[in-house]
Amino acid sequence: MLSSDKKWFSEECGECGSAFSLTLKEKLHEETTPFQTIAIYDTETFGKLMTIDGFVMLTTRDNFLYHEMMSHPVLLTHPSPKRVLIIGGGDCGTLREVLRHPGVELAQQVEIDERVTRLAEVHFPELCESNADPRAELHFVDGLKWVADAADGYYDVIIVDSTDPVGPAEGLFGEKFYRNCHRILGAHGLLVHQSESPLFHMKLLTAMHRAMRNAGYQGVQTLHYPQPVYPSGWWSATIARKDGQIDGFREAAAAALPFDTLYYNVGVHKGATALPTFMQKAFDAVAAEFA
Amino acid sequence: MLSSDKKWFSEECGECGSAFSLTLKEKLHEETTPFQTIAIYDTETFGKLMTIDGFVMLTTRDNFLYHEMMSHPVLLTHPSPKRVLIIGGGDCGTLREVLRHPGVELAQQVEIDERVTRLAEVHFPELCESNADPRAELHFVDGLKWVADAADGYYDVIIVDSTDPVGPAEGLFGEKFYRNCHRILGAHGLLVHQSESPLFHMKLLTAMHRAMRNAGYQGVQTLHYPQPVYPSGWWSATIARKDGQIDGFREAAAAALPFDTLYYNVGVHKGATALPTFMQKAFDAVAAEFA
Repeated sequence: MLSSDKKWFSEECGECGSAFSLTLKEKLHEETTPFQTIAIYDTETFGKLMTIDGFVMLTTRDNFLYHEMMSHPVLLTHPSPKRVLIIGGGDCGTLREVLRHPGVELAQQVEIDERVTRLAEVHFPELCESNADPRAELHFVDGLKWVADAADGYYDVIIVDSTDPVGPAEGLFGEKFYRNCHRILGAHGLLVHQSESPLFHMKLLTAMHRAMRNAGYQGVQTLHYPQPVYPSGWWSATIARKDGQIDGFREAAAAALPFDTLYYNVGVHKGATALPTFMQKAFDAVAAEFA
Repeated sequence: MLSSDKKWFSEECGECGSAFSLTLKEKLHEETTPFQTIAIYDTETFGKLMTIDGFVMLTTRDNFLYHEMMSHPVLLTHPSPKRVLIIGGGDCGTLREVLRHPGVELAQQVEIDERVTRLAEVHFPELCESNADPRAELHFVDGLKWVADAADGYYDVIIVDSTDPVGPAEGLFGEKFYRNCHRILGAHGLLVHQSESPLFHMKLLTAMHRAMRNAGYQGVQTLHYPQPVYPSGWWSATIARKDGQIDGFREAAAAALPFDTLYYNVGVHKGATALPTFMQKAFDAVAAEFA
């Protein structure tokens, strides 16, 4: 068990048989919204911590990994992304990274729970520094309904920055949702969705590949990267292209980004898409079903 | 805190402010040797678990990540590795991976604590399947003394598969040890040492780069990879070349390995050496001190 002379936050992952814990200074806030229970903690070494229904969403210290890898690879894979839709992403960290790209003309964040964003503004102000950018729109409605109602071919990139596939986010992992995203993407449009742990969730990952292909996407590519505060510390994102194979990315643009990153660069992009043998075999098997 | 209706093994990382836990079926064994306390557990989802002095050494489920990344990259970076020295590595998983390379003629494992290997033979037999290979030699003596006594220029590759830089392994992270390794390496000789977490241990990582360069190595390269049961789930290994820069690896050989891997392949090798921006900057600063 954990030392009783320290205050701990622990997240147990039942199906993983593992838990991750952080030492706390104190709980700063907790509230139950119509959607979920959000808590904010001050940790000893990870800065602020936000949890939803007891699951770690992000910490000050290591959110850069997830946010950079959910935004820069997909934006540099699209030939010229102008209109970006973020589903979820209420902490605004993904929105900030998206708006670092000068070519982006519109970034709509559609988060179901406004309280996530209002608490991020207080406790993670650095992630919210682009919320007032004239290109940003913050909508607090159901992402499923948003994509069902959106106009055909409107978006260049859709980023699904969702919680795990239980509770409010469950529908976001389904073929029907992916199909609506496919419809509202323009030519060469790309969808990216956080896709859990390569160690723990290969069943989900292969199901996502299958659902994306069933929904009409022609190319599917998974990226992997470290994310210490999520189960196993090893995480992934999966990109799907509406109308063709995913064949590389804009390397020259990635090498000349007009902003700084902590994790992402050209080599990291290539490395993230160079999959471990066991993952590649599993995804090749899904692709073969559709050949 | 963790659920009290489950049995947990927890490893706290004091300086990290974090802990990692696994659910247990039972403790199978515990003994205190002249060097340390070794325990073996049966976990719910990770197979067997070996700990030393309360720190996770390996599990059945995910040791392939560490063992593949400690052996294949360095062996494929050397032009023709024939004599390999493993310091530590008592679980024999690294030895097994090394002996998968047909060109290796001698693999000496020098582990200070014979009980680690004897317990691995019982509880991790799959890792010990090459212990009877005629090219394998198992020595149970102090690695520091072994490298001090070894002949000049004898080895092609030295793999330091050590515990953390506290206790018996502390001297293995020092310049004096690295200097002896440098002396006993032949032309184009390579040293690789496990180098802890990029999230938690950048001070140690930069100190290792500095110690290796001070010890006379001309090129230093860090690889990063997931290792879920170690602190942060994100781990590294650092390769140092005796007499020149580390410039790529034998890609054609890596693409045609005569054995299967779960994690390692050509793309993974390139990805592991493509460092995140924050790491590259830190190592560039150390290299600049020696320019």
